[in-house]
Amino acid sequence: MRLSRYFLPILRETPKEAEIVSHRLMLRAGMVRQESAGIYAWLPLGLRVLNKVQAIVREEQNRSGAIELLMPTIQSADLWRESGRYDAYGKEMLRIRDRHDREMLFGPTNEEMITEIFRAYVKSYKDLPLNLYHLQWKFRDEVRPRFGTMRSREFLMKDAYSFDLDKEAAVHAYNKMFVAYLRTFERFGLKSIPMRADTGPIGGDLSHEFIILADTGESQVYCHKDYLDFAVPPADTDFDDVAGIKNTVAKWTSLYAATDEMHDAAAYEAIPEASRVSARGIEVGHIFYFGTKYSDPMAATVQGPDGKPVPVHMGSYGIGPTRVVAAIIEACHDEAGIKWPAAVAPFTVSVMNLKQGDSACDAACEELYRTLSAKGVDVLYDDRDDRPGAKFATADLIGIPYQVMIGPRGLAEGKVEMKLRATGEREMLTAADVVARVTGG
Amino acid sequence: MRLSRYFLPILRETPKEAEIVSHRLMLRAGMVRQESAGIYAWLPLGLRVLNKVQAIVREEQNRSGAIELLMPTIQSADLWRESGRYDAYGKEMLRIRDRHDREMLFGPTNEEMITEIFRAYVKSYKDLPLNLYHLQWKFRDEVRPRFGTMRSREFLMKDAYSFDLDKEAAVHAYNKMFVAYLRTFERFGLKSIPMRADTGPIGGDLSHEFIILADTGESQVYCHKDYLDFAVPPADTDFDDVAGIKNTVAKWTSLYAATDEMHDAAAYEAIPEASRVSARGIEVGHIFYFGTKYSDPMAATVQGPDGKPVPVHMGSYGIGPTRVVAAIIEACHDEAGIKWPAAVAPFTVSVMNLKQGDSACDAACEELYRTLSAKGVDVLYDDRDDRPGAKFATADLIGIPYQVMIGPRGLAEGKVEMKLRATGEREMLTAADVVARVTGG
Repeated sequence: MRLSRYFLPILRETPKEAEIVSHRLMLRAGMVRQESAGIYAWLPLGLRVLNKVQAIVREEQNRSGAIELLMPTIQSADLWRESGRYDAYGKEMLRIRDRHDREMLFGPTNEEMITEIFRAYVKSYKDLPLNLYHLQWKFRDEVRPRFGTMRSREFLMKDAYSFDLDKEAAVHAYNKMFVAYLRTFERFGLKSIPMRADTGPIGGDLSHEFIILADTGESQVYCHKDYLDFAVPPADTDFDDVAGIKNTVAKWTSLYAATDEMHDAAAYEAIPEASRVSARGIEVGHIFYFGTKYSDPMAATVQGPDGKPVPVHMGSYGIGPTRVVAAIIEACHDEAGIKWPAAVAPFTVSVMNLKQGDSACDAACEELYRTLSAKGVDVLYDDRDDRPGAKFATADLIGIPYQVMIGPRGLAEGKVEMKLRATGEREMLTAADVVARVTGG
Repeated sequence: MRLSRYFLPILRETPKEAEIVSHRLMLRAGMVRQESAGIYAWLPLGLRVLNKVQAIVREEQNRSGAIELLMPTIQSADLWRESGRYDAYGKEMLRIRDRHDREMLFGPTNEEMITEIFRAYVKSYKDLPLNLYHLQWKFRDEVRPRFGTMRSREFLMKDAYSFDLDKEAAVHAYNKMFVAYLRTFERFGLKSIPMRADTGPIGGDLSHEFIILADTGESQVYCHKDYLDFAVPPADTDFDDVAGIKNTVAKWTSLYAATDEMHDAAAYEAIPEASRVSARGIEVGHIFYFGTKYSDPMAATVQGPDGKPVPVHMGSYGIGPTRVVAAIIEACHDEAGIKWPAAVAPFTVSVMNLKQGDSACDAACEELYRTLSAKGVDVLYDDRDDRPGAKFATADLIGIPYQVMIGPRGLAEGKVEMKLRATGEREMLTAADVVARVTGG
């Protein structure tokens, strides 16, 4: 992408309304714009990150055997009356009446709707297990939305729903998502720690939150230090290996880890002092097993092996990509701006022309831009007629991992300068070396 | 994808409520489920098609220079008061009050919001031209939603908005989208014909609808037969070539073409009789140039070359992917089911095991499934323990372009049978030939 033709509205001033660093940086970097309280437009740069996050979520959901569908945003109130949640949900539910005065709502979650879809089609235990997920916009009418996309009213959620014949099978479904989540967060460039959690309005008796550590995190968390070095299950993990998956979950729940609300000071203090981690954390995922809480009232049964109807055991599993984008920034930034992990960076490489209009610089920039683009690398070519300092500041602010500066002095020696955003490390390289470095070739 | 692990709820009965063939086939093929009047869930098979349609739309929008962002679904009423459309829009607008009793709405379109974003950031003519688009769910509260996803209340729309300094530049922006649309519809496997159109509630003085011909189309259309043989501009079209783009549009608007409402019987009858086409058509895209209709009341100005503020000239450009999926089916089906054009098929190949459990058949199917999948081909492996007849019927109903039937008789001679859904043509081939045929290798 040529920056001169892109839409990247960088803000010079730090917006006053932003209370946390991710919100400030997302506004300054031209990633989002607030359209109403807690409702954001994703500007082109922000959308690129959001799409990369979504793509990773999808790949890991699919790898674990979950199947993608897409439910609508607007739901019927009647569906929520079946589960008893329509009245229970309270003011966070955005309630709507259509032109025929039918009661509708903007879905805050989809347990009811997916249960309705399931019961309409699935009749036999032979069609289980089943895990269906979607990525769709949700709305929760928070009384005081704040913290940017970390806690917005309209937000994107990946929500998966598992259906099994009994608790044992449902726990395997739960464990598969547990492992998929470990992989997902690692691919974002984050270290996540699963912590036992309260089930809240979703219900059920088994639940974990996935927490990432960030100095600016929203809540206090406590865990054993060894979690930070646990290896995340590899890409070729066999999700059908019930015992193997169970062992992984057992390992990742073997040591102490708790959010403030579930914290047990005595258990924590039983950890040797050198192994205690008390830190700030951000919730980036939440998984639940809730048995027949929805299948019972909604009559979602299948015919069991003995021919009798059995209510299915269910779980639900959420990741909020719009929140994850902010969480990554909380974990990865410095004074100058965002430091994107490569997998979710909006552009992998920034090519900065330090003397726009100089024929050698223009030609070298064009060639590198074309070469990298042809290899499928996402390149932002800063071809604006602007000072080098402004280009450096933009690249740092928007957090591009590889920054290539092309100017007359380096070119005279056949070199360009490459800077790594993560470490600040700088090196003079030939353009060919830059290509090799970036593409790992 | 192994069908035994997929979620493909085929219906045996033809649903009574469906009035048109695309709606019937989408329900029967397990592509969508109605959740409320005019509100659909996209089941896994349907979502695959919808995603392929969206990907093509994106590629062609990007190729023409448009930039993707993503605006929220919920908008503030105040924004629509600025343009004067809040009161004018009528009952099709889904109006909402949030917990603080603020007036909101579920966006039916985004002229106001994109104008607000534009004016917040763009200050100079030097930042033009700009064309911003998004793919987002919209809601129009139709009084009597019908025809499935062809005319639903909640629907997906790609809407692009162009901003230019003057009418001349704005017409070039319009022409670029005109060409992008020709390319987009051709890539879906459709032949589209641009027809002069009424501007309706969007406003403006220049507008074209893109119509595809289908025997079961919603409205009567009239055009010159030569349009059917016009070549669509190629992928390497230079969208910056103002004269070239203009010539393409001139050619594609040189002959008579009109929908019923714009029909001029005298002009039509001036066409030689052999060149007249009177047929049924379906609108799949609509483009508008409307000058300063929104920029004037909303004060979206830029500083012109002379330093004075100029209201920008705008256009908007819509394609509804959820409608396009239905339109493709209207144009491509037979008695047995859907006949997907390859570019939008949910799976390119169906591998049918005609004797599940037979070790030779199982091995041959597995190998072909793996080989094709490894080459990036979307394969549905029908590994259900079911009669061959049921597998043939499913593959035809869901419209898979390449159908490979693997049974003991063929395997004895080292062959499998391949059937093309489009033509019904059948051939005995080696598995290696199937791979070569499907991958064009």
